[in-house]
Amino acid sequence: MSAPTPPGDAVVDLLGLVALGELLAFERMAADARLAPDLRRRAALGEMAAAEIANYRRLADRLGVLGVLPDDAMAAYVEPLQAYHDSTEPRDWAEVVTKAYVGDAITDDFLREIAGALREPDRQLVLDVLHESRYAEFAAAEIRLAISADPKVAGRLSMWARRLVGEALSQAGRVAAADRGALTTLITQGEQMDVAGLFRRLTTAHTARMAAAGLNN
Amino acid sequence: MSAPTPPGDAVVDLLGLVALGELLAFERMAADARLAPDLRRRAALGEMAAAEIANYRRLADRLGVLGVLPDDAMAAYVEPLQAYHDSTEPRDWAEVVTKAYVGDAITDDFLREIAGALREPDRQLVLDVLHESRYAEFAAAEIRLAISADPKVAGRLSMWARRLVGEALSQAGRVAAADRGALTTLITQGEQMDVAGLFRRLTTAHTARMAAAGLNN
Repeated sequence: MSAPTPPGDAVVDLLGLVALGELLAFERMAADARLAPDLRRRAALGEMAAAEIANYRRLADRLGVLGVLPDDAMAAYVEPLQAYHDSTEPRDWAEVVTKAYVGDAITDDFLREIAGALREPDRQLVLDVLHESRYAEFAAAEIRLAISADPKVAGRLSMWARRLVGEALSQAGRVAAADRGALTTLITQGEQMDVAGLFRRLTTAHTARMAAAGLNN
Repeated sequence: MSAPTPPGDAVVDLLGLVALGELLAFERMAADARLAPDLRRRAALGEMAAAEIANYRRLADRLGVLGVLPDDAMAAYVEPLQAYHDSTEPRDWAEVVTKAYVGDAITDDFLREIAGALREPDRQLVLDVLHESRYAEFAAAEIRLAISADPKVAGRLSMWARRLVGEALSQAGRVAAADRGALTTLITQGEQMDVAGLFRRLTTAHTARMAAAGLNN
């Protein structure tokens, strides 16, 4: 048993943001599954989606323990997160797996960075909801398969990945604008956390991942 | 440990049918979640959907143990099951929860009946993938809530439930037609299984459930 964490606005906001991210990722992945070329891959994306909703439940339960209705904690972020997904609707299976690959990994990097600024049990909870590596491996393998079937695909998917990152950054700006201050303070004032460094680390990791999947940054 | 079950076509066909039912139910429920009036209910339907894909995984794994590719076992049923869902797209949240309530329960009744004709471990597997009662309770509560908010809704939802059953029966006929014979034989030649009695029991249980949720049959 860890010592009880007093509910703070920043933690509630962060958990609400992450919970909504999981809920919307679940829905979009489940919908994107229809673009899969066969039932096996369709089911594989469905299972990736199911992992997101299981994480949603853990975050929502934690918000309940903190005395907050999950809907209240999530409300401020519905518009930017929905806008991200609406503006990045994949047109085919290769775009579906690229979106999952890029989006999951950047989310995880961000959560790993921010976890250090949290106290237990929220720190561990945020680390627990990181995506399992087998999902990234599945997505990367599908991307490489699409490229080996048609090398021209690499250029199109590289451009798609850049668009995903651009949209994510633009909506992250809107999340920060929607924030009541506490969350931004948490992110920027955490131990050894400087925003420029955060962006640099996220970008470096993203570039390495693109290369690993056969894409250019 | 139970004795090994020799793979029989009928069992493979049944597991393929149930697996595909779970996969499509997952996708449709996840898509229907967007009609939820708030994020809490949206997430609740997402969690019901996630339970279906978890069951899909168990059935697909069992097919793998039997030396069958899940896609091969499911292929014959894609058209009728997809047609069922395409012809029963809910238009609002009350129709969403009614579809889940009616469809899950009839599926479960059917599986409970057919489980008796199976040997272990498939008998237990089919019983294990029955829906958890808390999901039916959630759906019934939502239906009653919709009716109490507007009593006229009861008539519309009763009609909708009849259409769901009608479409399900019509697609069940197509499943039987698509069947290579083994599955139908399994269903009709199980211990003490007579088709007329099966339909009578399914209908009686359905009528009772309609009444429990405030609907007419």
